[in-house]
Amino acid sequence: MNRKLRMGMIGGGTGSFIGDVHRKAASIDGMIELVCGAFSSTAEKSIQSGKDLFLPKNRCYGSYEEMILKEKELPEDERMDFVSIVTPNHMHFPPAKMALENGFHVVCDKPMTLTLEEAIELEKIIEKSGKLFALTHNYPGSPMVKQAKALVDNGDIGTIRKVVVQYLQGWLSTDLETTGQKQAAWRVDPKRSGIGGALGDIGTHAENLVEYITGLKITEIAADLGRFGKGRVLDDDGNLLLRLENGAKGTMSFSQIALGEENNLAIKVYGTKGSLEWQQENPNQLITHWLEEPVKIYTPNGNKLHPAAQISRIPAGHPEGYLEAFATVYKNFSNHLIAELKGEKIDNPDYPTAKDGIRGMKFIYAAVESDKNNATWTKI
Amino acid sequence: MNRKLRMGMIGGGTGSFIGDVHRKAASIDGMIELVCGAFSSTAEKSIQSGKDLFLPKNRCYGSYEEMILKEKELPEDERMDFVSIVTPNHMHFPPAKMALENGFHVVCDKPMTLTLEEAIELEKIIEKSGKLFALTHNYPGSPMVKQAKALVDNGDIGTIRKVVVQYLQGWLSTDLETTGQKQAAWRVDPKRSGIGGALGDIGTHAENLVEYITGLKITEIAADLGRFGKGRVLDDDGNLLLRLENGAKGTMSFSQIALGEENNLAIKVYGTKGSLEWQQENPNQLITHWLEEPVKIYTPNGNKLHPAAQISRIPAGHPEGYLEAFATVYKNFSNHLIAELKGEKIDNPDYPTAKDGIRGMKFIYAAVESDKNNATWTKI
Amino acid sequence: MNRKLRMGMIGGGTGSFIGDVHRKAASIDGMIELVCGAFSSTAEKSIQSGKDLFLPKNRCYGSYEEMILKEKELPEDERMDFVSIVTPNHMHFPPAKMALENGFHVVCDKPMTLTLEEAIELEKIIEKSGKLFALTHNYPGSPMVKQAKALVDNGDIGTIRKVVVQYLQGWLSTDLETTGQKQAAWRVDPKRSGIGGALGDIGTHAENLVEYITGLKITEIAADLGRFGKGRVLDDDGNLLLRLENGAKGTMSFSQIALGEENNLAIKVYGTKGSLEWQQENPNQLITHWLEEPVKIYTPNGNKLHPAAQISRIPAGHPEGYLEAFATVYKNFSNHLIAELKGEKIDNPDYPTAKDGIRGMKFIYAAVESDKNNATWTKI
Amino acid sequence: MNRKLRMGMIGGGTGSFIGDVHRKAASIDGMIELVCGAFSSTAEKSIQSGKDLFLPKNRCYGSYEEMILKEKELPEDERMDFVSIVTPNHMHFPPAKMALENGFHVVCDKPMTLTLEEAIELEKIIEKSGKLFALTHNYPGSPMVKQAKALVDNGDIGTIRKVVVQYLQGWLSTDLETTGQKQAAWRVDPKRSGIGGALGDIGTHAENLVEYITGLKITEIAADLGRFGKGRVLDDDGNLLLRLENGAKGTMSFSQIALGEENNLAIKVYGTKGSLEWQQENPNQLITHWLEEPVKIYTPNGNKLHPAAQISRIPAGHPEGYLEAFATVYKNFSNHLIAELKGEKIDNPDYPTAKDGIRGMKFIYAAVESDKNNATWTKI
Repeated sequence: MNRKLRMGMIGGGTGSFIGDVHRKAASIDGMIELVCGAFSSTAEKSIQSGKDLFLPKNRCYGSYEEMILKEKELPEDERMDFVSIVTPNHMHFPPAKMALENGFHVVCDKPMTLTLEEAIELEKIIEKSGKLFALTHNYPGSPMVKQAKALVDNGDIGTIRKVVVQYLQGWLSTDLETTGQKQAAWRVDPKRSGIGGALGDIGTHAENLVEYITGLKITEIAADLGRFGKGRVLDDDGNLLLRLENGAKGTMSFSQIALGEENNLAIKVYGTKGSLEWQQENPNQLITHWLEEPVKIYTPNGNKLHPAAQISRIPAGHPEGYLEAFATVYKNFSNHLIAELKGEKIDNPDYPTAKDGIRGMKFIYAAVESDKNNATWTKI
Repeated sequence: MNRKLRMGMIGGGTGSFIGDVHRKAASIDGMIELVCGAFSSTAEKSIQSGKDLFLPKNRCYGSYEEMILKEKELPEDERMDFVSIVTPNHMHFPPAKMALENGFHVVCDKPMTLTLEEAIELEKIIEKSGKLFALTHNYPGSPMVKQAKALVDNGDIGTIRKVVVQYLQGWLSTDLETTGQKQAAWRVDPKRSGIGGALGDIGTHAENLVEYITGLKITEIAADLGRFGKGRVLDDDGNLLLRLENGAKGTMSFSQIALGEENNLAIKVYGTKGSLEWQQENPNQLITHWLEEPVKIYTPNGNKLHPAAQISRIPAGHPEGYLEAFATVYKNFSNHLIAELKGEKIDNPDYPTAKDGIRGMKFIYAAVESDKNNATWTKI
Repeated sequence: MNRKLRMGMIGGGTGSFIGDVHRKAASIDGMIELVCGAFSSTAEKSIQSGKDLFLPKNRCYGSYEEMILKEKELPEDERMDFVSIVTPNHMHFPPAKMALENGFHVVCDKPMTLTLEEAIELEKIIEKSGKLFALTHNYPGSPMVKQAKALVDNGDIGTIRKVVVQYLQGWLSTDLETTGQKQAAWRVDPKRSGIGGALGDIGTHAENLVEYITGLKITEIAADLGRFGKGRVLDDDGNLLLRLENGAKGTMSFSQIALGEENNLAIKVYGTKGSLEWQQENPNQLITHWLEEPVKIYTPNGNKLHPAAQISRIPAGHPEGYLEAFATVYKNFSNHLIAELKGEKIDNPDYPTAKDGIRGMKFIYAAVESDKNNATWTKI
Repeated sequence: MNRKLRMGMIGGGTGSFIGDVHRKAASIDGMIELVCGAFSSTAEKSIQSGKDLFLPKNRCYGSYEEMILKEKELPEDERMDFVSIVTPNHMHFPPAKMALENGFHVVCDKPMTLTLEEAIELEKIIEKSGKLFALTHNYPGSPMVKQAKALVDNGDIGTIRKVVVQYLQGWLSTDLETTGQKQAAWRVDPKRSGIGGALGDIGTHAENLVEYITGLKITEIAADLGRFGKGRVLDDDGNLLLRLENGAKGTMSFSQIALGEENNLAIKVYGTKGSLEWQQENPNQLITHWLEEPVKIYTPNGNKLHPAAQISRIPAGHPEGYLEAFATVYKNFSNHLIAELKGEKIDNPDYPTAKDGIRGMKFIYAAVESDKNNATWTKI
């Protein structure tokens, strides 16, 4: 199969944030070609966005339905292989369902769907379709997160006792949604975001990171959500107690009103033999502590990395960032898809799937329920 | 009053941790002279400790009772002015009470007492005695904590919405108390520590720091305490949700089983106009964020400090640490005491008192009760 | 011109370091398509490399000469627009000259050429050809370097008095070239590297960064070069005194035997009104000091950035790294080339050119001469 | 000898910087008592300073000569044991000489003397007197500097190849001396400072730190000194190339016009097996790199410290700073003096002496000479 994979994008018109991220991330490794898109809600706008991306007019569609149906009719060596869904949450399920049912693989932004029900149904559709589904939790794509997970999996830090995780942003400190800023507008709107605000937008990343690194499920949470922005009905802040399946405990704090914070996702994991600390804003360090050793700091392409963490594209000391981690999700998905197309099998392909997506949705639902009950412990 | 203040110490025999800290902190500013002590439970040991400190034999007492009574009989220009109590928690109340009732001022390590009842009673005794009482919460003694408080007091960061505080240590990750280590032994023993373990030892520091900087009371908490060390009956870990009197929310995480953490007290305070971040292990920076300004970092003796924060003893860039902050508590207490001895008055002397001590004890009690009720919200 | 630019690559066969970097950097912004390559010294290897990159066989050439001649014969709407030269230094001049003389634009890795004479000749060829030439000094592509330059240009830090720059690596601490490692082998070989070792490889980056940010020329240097690796004839370490055209002074230290250093390029610039500090390994901060203000830290997409620094592809707090800065060189070159192809003009296109390349070569020559004369001051 | 050592101070009147530092540092460990002083140039001022320090009038002298002579006449169990000289450089030699010749031990601030000749003569006087002489280079008193030295001494980092040291301050960025600021005034005055400005004030600290940690002598230097402040005749900035006795090379940069820098002394030492990095402003970390290990960070009282570095007064994570390191010089001097007074011997007492002082003076002289010869290599 000597060709690039062909991607069709749903959403992500000119000026969008996450659509642009997906395109850049998908392009870095030279494995994926953007061939078509339903970038906007009108054909005209979609064509304009496509033009900026050097796409021919006839591959710029006015709706995802049109794209899926028309691409399906194209010859096999021309039509898209998969769709990338980069719309607000309420527009994840419909196109994902239709794409899968028409034979296309799917990459979808998080959270998986608008509602938990949709997520559960989508998982069934995925299974039935036999197609691949990737959810773009990007942070596990960072080499130092892989190293953290490897140290845990390897037993190096012993039994985990405590987790402290935070995901702090400040961009909704002001009532930004009242200024016409699109990113803010849909995030505070339950019709487009679902029942979680910051919870779904970033809380799910924190939840996913905890479970990815520790390999443990968060079994119950006590959540105290805040709605600090004027008139907001969805949370823009959350403070949680965590209990993990092995008896470990912890806290989670997320916020979009933590003024001045940019994208401060950080996690600390304490075991009986060692501990780990990783910060997204300084992603090229994994700080570790040990019972009888000095502090050790691992770096991408540095010394003594676990093979699973040896995924850097550039030499040690050449900083990698957000896009590279994001690209790793696409890369691992692409390798899986190439194998599929060749009729080969891959064991445990390393990218987030519907399973992670459903965990995320359950987390959102449990947090909202706990919050309604004044932060009573609620099972995920 | 051209003389040093005369201090008598209760506890703090050779090899002790906190007694030595108190002595060093008290000596830095040259205002205090150690003149006597009841350092240990026997006269012999006490004399040996006193010898190491160059004290005459006759000022080294076998018990605090003896010390208080004998010192009282000394001529006024010779006897101690105040006692410094550096014993485990169960031995705070008895000597404090006796000292006050016999006319001596008191400096006391935290938490204030073994039980809340004792604390409340002690406050009455203090009032009745007319003597000064300082509680050595040392962290407010740091210049950058003063700057943080000043920025809040001045309205610079606006209305506080969120607080994230942690106090993480790892020294009880192993079952250290079974090895004969004295510091560990009394801290895990309810008879000497009270109903809080790490809660009383370090959780109260975190609570005090939140209320000192924000000027807000924590009104209710939901506490999930951990007892990870084998056989421990007192908490060695805690995760809390916080609600403050103005509607702000937050989390607190403290631990003595956070392996590898040394003394990681850190606080973040988010307002509507700005935010603050301070870490005890890197105490000479106050990181601040602003709605429309770049990140600003204040440093001791650096630019644009509030007068309240201009308390450094050495020029900018010459790091100050734990002892200096501790010394500031002694210094401010000493200045107050000198004024008293001169018959002068001082407005709002800046050191922690019984009021802070009672807040700390109420915090301990609320956390333990909340924990018993499975982290139900509990008023402080 | 609604199409991607078409790039032909010279060098960069499978497994190469810098060729892969160029490809990734060129692809991020979706403006450039790799259409052909002379990746290796044999047609067979070149075809294999091209296959990994999904190129058709007939666009994978056995030599740069073949590529240039054959591409020239292709229809205008198919043939490459420019070549990207990613070979060792001795193979920069010949393909650049031939490409330019045959009507192709050129992107070339640094240092510009093997010898100063070649660089001077190449500049003439470029001028005569009327084609574009970009030299991939990537570090000026970082948003915070742009901000640093803007603060200087804007007069904010006043008159520059002092510069401290370092570029420290440790990968040649051992005698790596004796193990068959290709990157090491050519860098220690004067036939392929030229008269500078670490000097040409990284010293030129440091020189370029100083002149880019300060807008000042380094007028003379005193250089003490080291050759610590066994049998090395080229420098693997250097320590320099700097004098700048306005009377500022400084030091430069570069090394490839600074064990443990990964890619530690860092610069500090001190003026009469402010100062700047930037570190490549932590590129998303620009630390600034001011006469009467607290320390201020600028971040990509953060507050109060100069327009010239507002070039981030992703929101604040989403770390950008080496590839993104590299991509900015390609992006700015691409925008210039698109304008050229449209017959438009761009003022001061912001990417390094032959002028920078010649400065770099002169710097290498001056350092080597100074070193021969026992670190005598030598004019650049 | 069950008593505190008795210190007499020369200089350090109320409001002085370094005198206050010496007093605080001397007091921390409870081994030294300030008993007398010639704090100022008049008896009146001296008495006032002494009053602030709770000294009796009759022990506050109007001149060092008076103090030395009168103290000498006091009974042995009352008179001072040693003098601490904290005056500007030109007033180091005369009181040191007189104190030694009258039987008093000496602690002296650095640089040792005004001129190299004085230093050499003073060394002879010290030897003849049989008294102790400590020079307060305080930075070697930091636990992490001890750890650095121990790693070198132990052969852990192999053969040293490269040293990068800086000591950057910005407090003389403006023409502070013209405002009446006393600290600035004497430092820019050759009559009081000697032939070196920043060179003597901080350059000597950098030189001392290099030689202390590496155990190697700097054999020759090439120095380019700057005089940026208006009308300054002494250097306020310096850039140096270094060669060490074993063939290692390096750079030194010091400055008092590096605007915004507070007290940024930092050193990096690169060996064939490992490397070290220490920064005075963040003194509680020693960052180390290794050929095949991750980065390791040592902390005071942390894991795997060499016994020589186990000198912290407080537990891990409780930051120690400038005063504590300074205090360690006094402590080690005190232990030596106590041993002397008891008639005991101590091997290699660990504090800087006249030997270090003479090295510092030779360094100053070599740098000034090199600078005069346009940065020609000059032997120390």
